[in-house]
Amino acid sequence: MDYEEFEVLSPLDQKTYHGRFHSLVTGISLRHSDTVDVKFLLDGSPIVVALPHGEAATTIERFAGLAKRIVDCSADFRLRDPAAYRRWYGADHATPDWLGKFVYGLPELHRAELAGARYASGVGCNATVTVLALAPLAGAGLLRRVVADVKVGSSEGGAQPTAGSHHPERAGAVRSFMPTGHRHQAEIRQELGDAFELSFSVTAVELVRGALVTAHCFLSERIEERELWKLYRGRYQHEPFIRLVRQKTGIHRLPEPKLLAGSNWCDVGFEVDADSSANRVVVVAALDNLMKGAAGSAVQSMNLMLGWEETEGLRFPGLHPI
Amino acid sequence: MDYEEFEVLSPLDQKTYHGRFHSLVTGISLRHSDTVDVKFLLDGSPIVVALPHGEAATTIERFAGLAKRIVDCSADFRLRDPAAYRRWYGADHATPDWLGKFVYGLPELHRAELAGARYASGVGCNATVTVLALAPLAGAGLLRRVVADVKVGSSEGGAQPTAGSHHPERAGAVRSFMPTGHRHQAEIRQELGDAFELSFSVTAVELVRGALVTAHCFLSERIEERELWKLYRGRYQHEPFIRLVRQKTGIHRLPEPKLLAGSNWCDVGFEVDADSSANRVVVVAALDNLMKGAAGSAVQSMNLMLGWEETEGLRFPGLHPI
Amino acid sequence: MDYEEFEVLSPLDQKTYHGRFHSLVTGISLRHSDTVDVKFLLDGSPIVVALPHGEAATTIERFAGLAKRIVDCSADFRLRDPAAYRRWYGADHATPDWLGKFVYGLPELHRAELAGARYASGVGCNATVTVLALAPLAGAGLLRRVVADVKVGSSEGGAQPTAGSHHPERAGAVRSFMPTGHRHQAEIRQELGDAFELSFSVTAVELVRGALVTAHCFLSERIEERELWKLYRGRYQHEPFIRLVRQKTGIHRLPEPKLLAGSNWCDVGFEVDADSSANRVVVVAALDNLMKGAAGSAVQSMNLMLGWEETEGLRFPGLHPI
Amino acid sequence: MDYEEFEVLSPLDQKTYHGRFHSLVTGISLRHSDTVDVKFLLDGSPIVVALPHGEAATTIERFAGLAKRIVDCSADFRLRDPAAYRRWYGADHATPDWLGKFVYGLPELHRAELAGARYASGVGCNATVTVLALAPLAGAGLLRRVVADVKVGSSEGGAQPTAGSHHPERAGAVRSFMPTGHRHQAEIRQELGDAFELSFSVTAVELVRGALVTAHCFLSERIEERELWKLYRGRYQHEPFIRLVRQKTGIHRLPEPKLLAGSNWCDVGFEVDADSSANRVVVVAALDNLMKGAAGSAVQSMNLMLGWEETEGLRFPGLHPI
Repeated sequence: MDYEEFEVLSPLDQKTYHGRFHSLVTGISLRHSDTVDVKFLLDGSPIVVALPHGEAATTIERFAGLAKRIVDCSADFRLRDPAAYRRWYGADHATPDWLGKFVYGLPELHRAELAGARYASGVGCNATVTVLALAPLAGAGLLRRVVADVKVGSSEGGAQPTAGSHHPERAGAVRSFMPTGHRHQAEIRQELGDAFELSFSVTAVELVRGALVTAHCFLSERIEERELWKLYRGRYQHEPFIRLVRQKTGIHRLPEPKLLAGSNWCDVGFEVDADSSANRVVVVAALDNLMKGAAGSAVQSMNLMLGWEETEGLRFPGLHPI
Repeated sequence: MDYEEFEVLSPLDQKTYHGRFHSLVTGISLRHSDTVDVKFLLDGSPIVVALPHGEAATTIERFAGLAKRIVDCSADFRLRDPAAYRRWYGADHATPDWLGKFVYGLPELHRAELAGARYASGVGCNATVTVLALAPLAGAGLLRRVVADVKVGSSEGGAQPTAGSHHPERAGAVRSFMPTGHRHQAEIRQELGDAFELSFSVTAVELVRGALVTAHCFLSERIEERELWKLYRGRYQHEPFIRLVRQKTGIHRLPEPKLLAGSNWCDVGFEVDADSSANRVVVVAALDNLMKGAAGSAVQSMNLMLGWEETEGLRFPGLHPI
Repeated sequence: MDYEEFEVLSPLDQKTYHGRFHSLVTGISLRHSDTVDVKFLLDGSPIVVALPHGEAATTIERFAGLAKRIVDCSADFRLRDPAAYRRWYGADHATPDWLGKFVYGLPELHRAELAGARYASGVGCNATVTVLALAPLAGAGLLRRVVADVKVGSSEGGAQPTAGSHHPERAGAVRSFMPTGHRHQAEIRQELGDAFELSFSVTAVELVRGALVTAHCFLSERIEERELWKLYRGRYQHEPFIRLVRQKTGIHRLPEPKLLAGSNWCDVGFEVDADSSANRVVVVAALDNLMKGAAGSAVQSMNLMLGWEETEGLRFPGLHPI
Repeated sequence: MDYEEFEVLSPLDQKTYHGRFHSLVTGISLRHSDTVDVKFLLDGSPIVVALPHGEAATTIERFAGLAKRIVDCSADFRLRDPAAYRRWYGADHATPDWLGKFVYGLPELHRAELAGARYASGVGCNATVTVLALAPLAGAGLLRRVVADVKVGSSEGGAQPTAGSHHPERAGAVRSFMPTGHRHQAEIRQELGDAFELSFSVTAVELVRGALVTAHCFLSERIEERELWKLYRGRYQHEPFIRLVRQKTGIHRLPEPKLLAGSNWCDVGFEVDADSSANRVVVVAALDNLMKGAAGSAVQSMNLMLGWEETEGLRFPGLHPI
């Protein structure tokens, strides 16, 4: 079965919704496109909604009338708590009753719920890379404090040209564009709980596609690297899209987004800080923000919702060097 | 008086030591060159030593016999404490008696000592950007914990091609090359003391020239942004090469190395984390690692040692856009 | 049937020849790797030889004893004429008798010969992009003079770090590294004949993967754009890996390597110079030098040799944006 | 005397004309800025006009009433012939009587006329690099045909963000954006005459600042490299901003814009095509399009008009590596 064989329907609005499902699968982000992917298999077939933030909330009823299953890629249905939405997005949610109907579309944390679910949200790219970096430590109750320092490429900024995306200004930039106050913190908190202190900053670097988090983790106890291996392997060994990357030599010793362009991998690695008196472990994770951080997780979630093979349409292993 | 007018002598070895003094001044790093800059004005004129790490220590006696004043750009004379040297450089120092004769060549912290000094060390680029980011907070006794996450360009890696510097591998990289264990921590500790917990990581990004530190600072008390202004302005207002950068709007709201190429500026800015219960302030600082982080600070130190105008040879304001 | 399912044997030398067949298929070039070899499991299965230039010529007998079909990716068997080899490679060919046994591995020009062939050469990336740009005009006897100005990425330089590939030197370069004398001219001449004057230059630009030729063609007669369409469409309409790209508006009006990374496409477009009194047409063609310009054409040729589907293993459509 | 000491007046319109004279001198292009104007304090002091193309023509009378000397950086007064203007800019010139009053602002070709002149035009960056590459050959009457293939950075596109300048689309591009019909041909023709066939194409590459022309020159007679040296040295030896660059070894054998960022140099080199039966010589020239290709030539012209030192404000030697 192949996504590309699907027939694409756009009963709503031919101008706004034209099928780009193949693009979605190979990694041209929904969010990067100025238009929207909608895919109907048959009557009752699923819809992937990729409207700008805020618009999905106001049109969800209409989409729900058209399709049994929906994955929404915007930020509108990621948070369960209307108060959290208001705090981080600065306005009341347009359709708060719908928040509870959605599953957060990250299979690594919600696989069972996604199986057969009707509604799944998309995920924030910076949230995803951070959540996947931290989930094993958080799950084990080891985290006391985290400073998550995320480096991201220009495709995170969307498809609209701006002063900040103008090539002479953006090329070669190392720009601290969100040192505090980034909205994706809300997703991290929702998914990992509030048992640890979280600091979160995002810096734009010269790169189109990719995100890397350097998660400086301060643990409640000293932990050796082989225990970390055990912990992470235990949590992720059956995950189809997570790889543990930790080499002692070579140039690719830890995860790098450069190797992941177009793939749905999230690579995770770590290093214990031998000099730290504060039980510091640096966890490094990387992904393609347009794939695992957006469209890829959406497709992976939909696969689960439909009972398909989870990796369907997502097997591209990445391209190197680019 | 102009550096370029100096006559260049190389009495030692014409093959090894040829004059590139102008290069030094305009920013082609000593460390980036495969050879070495040595400048003799007249008998007793100063020498800038730019030998590989380890070699300056073994030849210092010889240079001292040739010149009254020496600035050494290597890492050999940055640390005062032989034990710290051994710990971070993995070997005993070849000439430990000389360590105490050198002043750490960062004018912002050692201006008075440098005035008239005979020997000054160079500075580590990542150490410098971090020390200048933190010095006002450290001086005020406000720092409890710091996570300094540094992003650096490829010129930090030196002039020798390696597997990691090969363009197809290095282009577009976001590479966590030193998440723990970076030697520059020793300089930061020496200069700022050990009253606070320090975590330090370095990530290579796509950039040739430049370094940016995102210093996540957790303070002993809550501090408002206007107090930070007062603190930083008080400390740096008379510094010829430090600018405070903190805009509310626009694309260059905080320091960026992209704007500093070729200049001797270190730009410093900050943002209070309104969401933090841990009194978090993010201090961001940027510089050109080949200038303020290496050759520029060396020249600035030498200017002070000679009693010259401190900004001599260092007035290039930077180039934008590049 | 899937390339990845093949078991890889290295009966010759485990150190020198290790299987990277999957890499080949997804686009990590043979030429970019230190050494690459693949041998299929079954007796009589084909070999892809990816030894450095010069080594294939001296080992061909040995390989021929191991496998019925061989695709050699080096430059050793691209030219039919030993004299041409001597002229462009500066030495006599080690096994000139073998030259006549090889088919030049460009399916667009040698499909019939490749079907069932035992030996096929690789292709030069710059030659391929130029040959595919010019073949329709050359075939129609319209070419009088051509200036082929090729722009290439850093992966063309191979896997070995050099002074020229060192990131601080290579990043942002626009380097005229071969304004005259490029060896790929020999392949172009062999494939397109010598009925026209050919000038050929190569400039390295900031890019890892990709080549673009701007072929300034001066024709024997004036030709309108719709006639060019007819000519190129007639020649290429059934080609599985050639697309004609020529838009009147938008930012991707003509072929661009940026859109082709990892794919086996060669995109071709053209524009008639309305101001030219010399019947100038500019033909622009782009490809991924590691795919259609190297490994991709090798696989495509092997598919033909084996009687497989020509596009087997080569269906990746490219990744955008990267 | 130092440009930076001048006081800047903006008597016309504070919103439109604000002083950025220092920027001009250090290389932030006039063309890159939204609007830039500089007026010297003293009565009768010169004006540098940097309005968008088309606006200078309609406001020239007003400026002429304010200042004795004007350098206009737009394209409005570069051409002497109103018919040529109409042909290349698609409209009649607003103030054709003024065309004859302006000197084309390229000192290498019009130094004598610029000395004491009242009005000078700016120059097109692509025209300048091509004119300086070809002038010695054109002057000697040796040119029969030229294909000038120019590679340019993103700062040529101006300061306004567009779909084509959006970083995810522009990064890593090798984009044939003007294969035929580029307006700068008009300037080249005006300056070098029409004794030779000229073909001209421009390709955008990954670079912010810089232009390189590969000028494929077909001469009326065979010429040896030492004669080319003689010809170019004879023409350019006293030029303060032209350097001949032609090395036999190393990575910087021919001119490269990467080495010229921020400088006013135009580097020129050449290579005789030993294989050519058409007397082909490849001339390669490079400059910083925001300096020698725009603001730098404007300042150089103004220096001549005012009788100042020609290199005043333009002595920055460039920055390497960037």
